[in-house]
Amino acid sequence: MNKILLSFFICIYTVGLLSAQSDEDALYLKKIHDFTLTKSKSYSWLEQLTIKAGPRIAGSMAYDNAVKLTSKQMMEAGASEVRLQECTVTGWDRGMKEQAYIVNKGKNNKWLKVLSLGNTIGTGPKGLQAEVIEVKSLDEIRALGKSKIMGKIVFYNRPMDPTQILTFSAYGGGVDQRVYGAATAAEYGAVASLIRSMSLRQDDFPHTGTSIYKDGVTKIPSLSVSTNDANVLSEALTKGKVEVFIKNTSKVMPKKVNHTVIGEIKGSTYPDQIILIGGHLDAWDVGEGAHDDGAGCVQAMQVLHTLTSMGYQPKRTIRCVLFANEENGLAGGTQYAKESNEKKEFHLAALESDSGGFVPRGFGFDADTSVFKTYYKKVSEWLPLFESYGLQFKIGGGGADINPLKSQKGLLIGLRPDSQRYFDYHHTAIDKFEAVNKRELELGAAAMTSLIYLLDKYGI
Amino acid sequence: MNKILLSFFICIYTVGLLSAQSDEDALYLKKIHDFTLTKSKSYSWLEQLTIKAGPRIAGSMAYDNAVKLTSKQMMEAGASEVRLQECTVTGWDRGMKEQAYIVNKGKNNKWLKVLSLGNTIGTGPKGLQAEVIEVKSLDEIRALGKSKIMGKIVFYNRPMDPTQILTFSAYGGGVDQRVYGAATAAEYGAVASLIRSMSLRQDDFPHTGTSIYKDGVTKIPSLSVSTNDANVLSEALTKGKVEVFIKNTSKVMPKKVNHTVIGEIKGSTYPDQIILIGGHLDAWDVGEGAHDDGAGCVQAMQVLHTLTSMGYQPKRTIRCVLFANEENGLAGGTQYAKESNEKKEFHLAALESDSGGFVPRGFGFDADTSVFKTYYKKVSEWLPLFESYGLQFKIGGGGADINPLKSQKGLLIGLRPDSQRYFDYHHTAIDKFEAVNKRELELGAAAMTSLIYLLDKYGI
Repeated sequence: MNKILLSFFICIYTVGLLSAQSDEDALYLKKIHDFTLTKSKSYSWLEQLTIKAGPRIAGSMAYDNAVKLTSKQMMEAGASEVRLQECTVTGWDRGMKEQAYIVNKGKNNKWLKVLSLGNTIGTGPKGLQAEVIEVKSLDEIRALGKSKIMGKIVFYNRPMDPTQILTFSAYGGGVDQRVYGAATAAEYGAVASLIRSMSLRQDDFPHTGTSIYKDGVTKIPSLSVSTNDANVLSEALTKGKVEVFIKNTSKVMPKKVNHTVIGEIKGSTYPDQIILIGGHLDAWDVGEGAHDDGAGCVQAMQVLHTLTSMGYQPKRTIRCVLFANEENGLAGGTQYAKESNEKKEFHLAALESDSGGFVPRGFGFDADTSVFKTYYKKVSEWLPLFESYGLQFKIGGGGADINPLKSQKGLLIGLRPDSQRYFDYHHTAIDKFEAVNKRELELGAAAMTSLIYLLDKYGI
Repeated sequence: MNKILLSFFICIYTVGLLSAQSDEDALYLKKIHDFTLTKSKSYSWLEQLTIKAGPRIAGSMAYDNAVKLTSKQMMEAGASEVRLQECTVTGWDRGMKEQAYIVNKGKNNKWLKVLSLGNTIGTGPKGLQAEVIEVKSLDEIRALGKSKIMGKIVFYNRPMDPTQILTFSAYGGGVDQRVYGAATAAEYGAVASLIRSMSLRQDDFPHTGTSIYKDGVTKIPSLSVSTNDANVLSEALTKGKVEVFIKNTSKVMPKKVNHTVIGEIKGSTYPDQIILIGGHLDAWDVGEGAHDDGAGCVQAMQVLHTLTSMGYQPKRTIRCVLFANEENGLAGGTQYAKESNEKKEFHLAALESDSGGFVPRGFGFDADTSVFKTYYKKVSEWLPLFESYGLQFKIGGGGADINPLKSQKGLLIGLRPDSQRYFDYHHTAIDKFEAVNKRELELGAAAMTSLIYLLDKYGI
């Protein structure tokens, strides 16, 4: 046999092998989907977590309930070992139901639907009343200067940009008002800040979320207002001077130990190569944290459940992590990476689901620049296996809790659910169990399991 | 200049032109999306249609209201001319609220949540009671034969297959029970049929939909039962003989004239090349027909509104058609194609939206085999323009109302929204305005407008 002919046969043989392998993987992905769409526990776990545990903000009793509940669920999922990792969180308490209204002297006041922002201080039980000034950006505050801002309530009213197709981009373009609005306004002498809710919908549900004070700057109360009432307030301001009364009794609480929940299955061949799947267990204190991020937690546990139920024996260690305190401190993710680095662990890959339990559209990938290209090339070979499930791969991903692992030079991955409805629910009283669709949740879990299976089987 | 060099420059020049053209189109698609996501009327039109007109089944007063209302909306959308096309529909009336229960002699009866299926006859006011036999398919009836079926109520209980990723495939695999179940059971002497609702969700909402009798076979009453109560009934049957009582007073109504609503903008260059966009205006008499197919109607009108508002002058005739009677007769679509053929019209393309107002995932294409390849190759050139909006193209599409136009050898197109939640609402009391998300609806309309713009600009 001449060399060319030999090469030809080797080539045919290799293509044949690859194709057979690919068929085998396609079949396994189909089995993963079939199992998840018929025998998943994720939806009932979510029901327990959202309804039984209660609103599980860091430092709350409900958070501790959630730790106990999910530790049990993690065993049901098939983890051979479940442990709790301590971290120190700074609690925050909303206090009494916050109030705000437009002062209509001599007439009925116009109540505004508001929520104290996370970490904000309170006005105290007497409340405060001041004239409102509307701005569209932090820069506008700086331009207006102290003479215009001093003594006033600053009302940030730049809406999220509806023309962004990916709603996370619209969120990214607006959220500086919520995070830094109070601190910036305070630098110029404002007495409080009101922020238009981070939502693309016109409705009556204010959205909470983190706000951050600046060292050395007076802390002022900061509340979000529903998009409908933001329009009402803005309209009132077009007619002349407007005063608003605000009352909230929010306060920062003493530091407390919280726990990240960790369950795992040891790898048979490469136990030191860890493949992490996770979400964050804490949630804001309004609603039930169903999409944010109960969905991510139960999807991550479902990956274990599906693989163990199907009798799959992982070569690498599959570790499911439900992080503490993502919403207002990131203590869980930070502590996890710290201890992992101290133990000189290597996370080959980490996949977080923290963008809602909506129909999955694909994954986003990130890694240290020294390794990214190699990794992305490798995973891109698997893309055809995912396309029949309507899934695409994108550059850029990860998640707040797993990003601190980047220095280990593994692959960071974010599940990318469809983003259109996420900010209808995000950080609101309506982020409840019934807002999550069972099939959409399960399809996300099946997509995650499929990717974890391939990562475990082939490595990167 | 030698020929090779000349070819090279021509090539560079052409690529440059193509690229500039493509940039220009990308910009126009962005403008279409920007307009639709900020200034669309579709959502408020849908609110009017679903809430003001009422449940607009063919032949009803509510349907006539819907015709008047959408004729006005069509003018608002910028149609230069609106006309009504007559067709003859066979009405059907649900009658009194249908009832069914499992007979528990001497104890409390177990009520079942049921809905009469479209076109079914009634039991009459006295109802009927008979023993139930559960089957999973029409073939099982044939295998059991008259001896087992005679005098009984046949209960079809094969669920839609949850492992189908596209829910329309799961629907296609189960709906024969609803459409032909009664006729088949009647051939073997059954006195009524109960059908498990066509839904992937376990819940308490029965789904109506068309059922078809067979000529020469006795008509028997046919009702759907909610998925939860289908499980209750099936469970009861595992314990022994079960009798069910059914009462409904549904009946077919006299023939009546209904109208398809047609609005159009004449083409400036090729007025005889028609590009149709449409949905169907009728809906089942439960719920508000919001996803099915109010969404499709307002999206189709939004295409006109966006193009006219942006000052776009179509070369070809853009015609928006809201078809009558899709749900139980297809009289509107059939009559439309008949008259169109008589006038020797040519529909270059027809795009129907009738799969719900969910986030768009792409388009499906179909045409006569003699032209399909050429057309699909042409539209595939545009795919890169759509991919940044998360849209894909697939072979196979169209819609029930436009399929009769296939013989004109134009391109038939179906909008493909995400299908995961469609059968949660389809033909139920919860297919209401609030089940439709504004952004998802608008993204669908923007996708449709984008494709219509390219079809008009370049033809196929």
